Amino acid sequence: MSIQESDLMQKLISLCKRRGFVFQSSEIYGGLKSCYDYGPLGIELKRNIMNEWWRSMVHERENIVGLDASIIMHPQVWQSSGHLSSFSDPLVDCLLCKERFRADKAPVVEVGSEVTYTDPKNKKKELKGVAERSYVCPVCGSPELSAERNFNLMFKSFMGSVDPMSQVADKLAGKSHNAQEIREVMEEELAKSTVYLRPETAQAMFVQFNNIQQSLSLKVPFGIAQMGKSFRNEVTVEHFIFRSCEFEQMEMEFFCEPGTQAKWLDYWKEERVNWYKSYANYPEKFTLRQHDDDELAHYADNCYDIEYEYPWGWDELEGVASRTDYDLKKHSEGSGTKLTYFDQQATNPETGKPGWRYTPFVIEPAAGATRATLVYLLDAYCEEKGVDAKGKEKSRVVLKLHPRLAPIKTAVLPLVKKDGMPEIARSIVDKFYKAGVMAKYDENTSIGKRYARHDEIGTPYCLTVDKQTLEDGTITIRDRDTTEQKRISVEDALSEVQARLQ
Amino acid sequence: MSIQESDLMQKLISLCKRRGFVFQSSEIYGGLKSCYDYGPLGIELKRNIMNEWWRSMVHERENIVGLDASIIMHPQVWQSSGHLSSFSDPLVDCLLCKERFRADKAPVVEVGSEVTYTDPKNKKKELKGVAERSYVCPVCGSPELSAERNFNLMFKSFMGSVDPMSQVADKLAGKSHNAQEIREVMEEELAKSTVYLRPETAQAMFVQFNNIQQSLSLKVPFGIAQMGKSFRNEVTVEHFIFRSCEFEQMEMEFFCEPGTQAKWLDYWKEERVNWYKSYANYPEKFTLRQHDDDELAHYADNCYDIEYEYPWGWDELEGVASRTDYDLKKHSEGSGTKLTYFDQQATNPETGKPGWRYTPFVIEPAAGATRATLVYLLDAYCEEKGVDAKGKEKSRVVLKLHPRLAPIKTAVLPLVKKDGMPEIARSIVDKFYKAGVMAKYDENTSIGKRYARHDEIGTPYCLTVDKQTLEDGTITIRDRDTTEQKRISVEDALSEVQARLQ
Repeated sequence: MSIQESDLMQKLISLCKRRGFVFQSSEIYGGLKSCYDYGPLGIELKRNIMNEWWRSMVHERENIVGLDASIIMHPQVWQSSGHLSSFSDPLVDCLLCKERFRADKAPVVEVGSEVTYTDPKNKKKELKGVAERSYVCPVCGSPELSAERNFNLMFKSFMGSVDPMSQVADKLAGKSHNAQEIREVMEEELAKSTVYLRPETAQAMFVQFNNIQQSLSLKVPFGIAQMGKSFRNEVTVEHFIFRSCEFEQMEMEFFCEPGTQAKWLDYWKEERVNWYKSYANYPEKFTLRQHDDDELAHYADNCYDIEYEYPWGWDELEGVASRTDYDLKKHSEGSGTKLTYFDQQATNPETGKPGWRYTPFVIEPAAGATRATLVYLLDAYCEEKGVDAKGKEKSRVVLKLHPRLAPIKTAVLPLVKKDGMPEIARSIVDKFYKAGVMAKYDENTSIGKRYARHDEIGTPYCLTVDKQTLEDGTITIRDRDTTEQKRISVEDALSEVQARLQ
Repeated sequence: MSIQESDLMQKLISLCKRRGFVFQSSEIYGGLKSCYDYGPLGIELKRNIMNEWWRSMVHERENIVGLDASIIMHPQVWQSSGHLSSFSDPLVDCLLCKERFRADKAPVVEVGSEVTYTDPKNKKKELKGVAERSYVCPVCGSPELSAERNFNLMFKSFMGSVDPMSQVADKLAGKSHNAQEIREVMEEELAKSTVYLRPETAQAMFVQFNNIQQSLSLKVPFGIAQMGKSFRNEVTVEHFIFRSCEFEQMEMEFFCEPGTQAKWLDYWKEERVNWYKSYANYPEKFTLRQHDDDELAHYADNCYDIEYEYPWGWDELEGVASRTDYDLKKHSEGSGTKLTYFDQQATNPETGKPGWRYTPFVIEPAAGATRATLVYLLDAYCEEKGVDAKGKEKSRVVLKLHPRLAPIKTAVLPLVKKDGMPEIARSIVDKFYKAGVMAKYDENTSIGKRYARHDEIGTPYCLTVDKQTLEDGTITIRDRDTTEQKRISVEDALSEVQARLQ
């Protein structure tokens, strides 16, 4: 790969649109901030990644089960989890240029120092002032700033048939109020029907702990896994699908006996990083980074990030956190329902007698399905220079996706649209359908263009029906990465591809 | 089946909770109106249904591709589609008892007739009045009603870092306003950042028509399919997961040449009803019902409902609508972007010359994944009376789910937890994992109880490792529906189950 890192994102975004992987949401209406739609190829890639995760986390394990909870949960859930009070960014308005920005991401200055900045109304005019805080406006540099306001990142909505806006209007009508009073009336009325879009899939596993443990008689240690959409009203969205307001997660809460969490954290951080590496061309671009003490969330006793080397540097892909018994205890307090586990075999460490009721500790590997999609696209993108059969220089773009992640496993191509070739090609596709292997019939444009197209969308194998097929019942199988072709019999096509997919 | 229809729903809801299919959302917090969580078995069942739909609609067809659009789309989308102006229920408040209800579902009376009703504050007091409208309050019978207000069913939210509530407070502060003025200020300020949760997955296929058609060079007729969550702020929620505020859909928009829509409607209505029947024990409970002229949406030229005979009677499961070119034209007008198709081969009917640019017509099979889950649970639920080996009467509950829909395909059970039986059982499970067949190892409780549990959750096959296995390498395979067992060799277990699953 000799692509300038700075170009890679642009090239990838362009390929994603051109080939139907990812489009901007509502593009014909000018798009919507950081929302993306997954096109025909993108949805297959994302589905494959998520299916592989589900298989490795749920289907292939005895002690992990799935959950698919509603996106809108009871508002008390977010009260207990702490999201209502503390899942927020500190926002500040510049009083000069009106920019709204995150205080914790603004340029740092020394408190009390003199700063110079530009007048937004007259760019030639230089202004001077004293910094009253440790940061200034990121746009004009001004130290004249509004108070910090905590801006909660959860999307709000209203459930029920009562229109809270009418209630507010009725309460406020006919009398003068100050802004504070108005805000209080609005907050009070809106609170009655306010619900939130979940900012993570995780809380449902704690809230449904009893139902799931009891209905399946699960024994600790066990895990509950969930995949699905989450929503965050991010002020800063960046890097294509890396940080967006609507995204997809793959999270698992692993419940274990108090005291065993260090062992399980160790187990899960290795399992997860190895999972990523097993589908990658460049496993060295994945690494584990332990959180420093001052980075740790207050409820966590340890945490690792799985980081990937994106074009803009190392950044987060998954967090594997040791969350102690914080969440179950908080929901237990908030709901008045015991969320504990009784182990008949274990010895109660306090009494020394058999039988121990405890609140399980939790290890949480929290992966981003959207981010994993970006990571595997970056890992796969490749430009190759070579020479064609006539010695002419030519280059190609290849998505070297792992065959299990590739949207289409096999393209079946009749060399020409006649002489019975389409019929043979379609009968091969039929066999693949029946075996549940994603194959696509493709008869448009020249064979060379079709190979190039399938290289670009990551199809690992192309099967071509040609003149010789009519004579001896053999077809060519072409390998995406080596571009090598060999002849196999039509009968062996499915088993050949299946063997290579394993 | 000798279950009283009225009991069936209660029995099913109970089984769903007891066995981990469906729980009430946020149950420990008292639940949330009509939101449901799919437990370990429920998520597998729903995933299987959705995967089967995707396979039959996308993977096994040359001319249908997938899409996975964001749930939050540009608000203009809903302006153009008509959802902002007309996706609403007419709501009315009873001025006497304060009940809020849907005008179109209230008890019908003759306008001008005298009606008698009860005073909610004094149930013994009978009141009389004249009906000014064609309906009265469904609770107290009063004709004293508020004006009808259209209540839009879309969930609203706010995107971006501006807090619209503060803006409203600032604008209203320091002056007296009437309710109408306040409502206008609120509407104006909120509109700037208001977004909606999609009430259907369908619109994204129209909005992304150009991107998808062009990136894959698709030729009409072709289809775009999408599965995912949709949200409706329903006033009336009913029948467990049948009508809820958050639900999952499987929709496909099939674009065809103008004039061919009748033929394609006919094709799709048959395809879809046959799809449902192919997984059902009682195919006669599925039927097609053509919409009467006065039922048709204004943009549709024909429509069929696929109905199922639920315990409460025949009701909707899927709609197959012929939507004309309405949607593409509306989004074309709304966005200023041409959403048309150029067919070089076709003859333009107006000019008689080759080459025709037209707006495709659309056939939409719109299925409910949540409803399909309910339907297959109802179809499968079965209570059987029989006699055991000793001639004692016994009954069992069986979920006769189609093997392809069953959450677990095979349970592998060691007769006892010793003598190497667990090891053999686990090695069998391993083989199933590798082949991608969902198998579960289960060693808890007696073998009889395990069979009963797997009957209740619909596991079609149980493989049991017993003493004889240690001697001759054979195991028993037990069929859920017949309860018959036969011995097969350990080596044949996977291929035997795979053959039965086809």
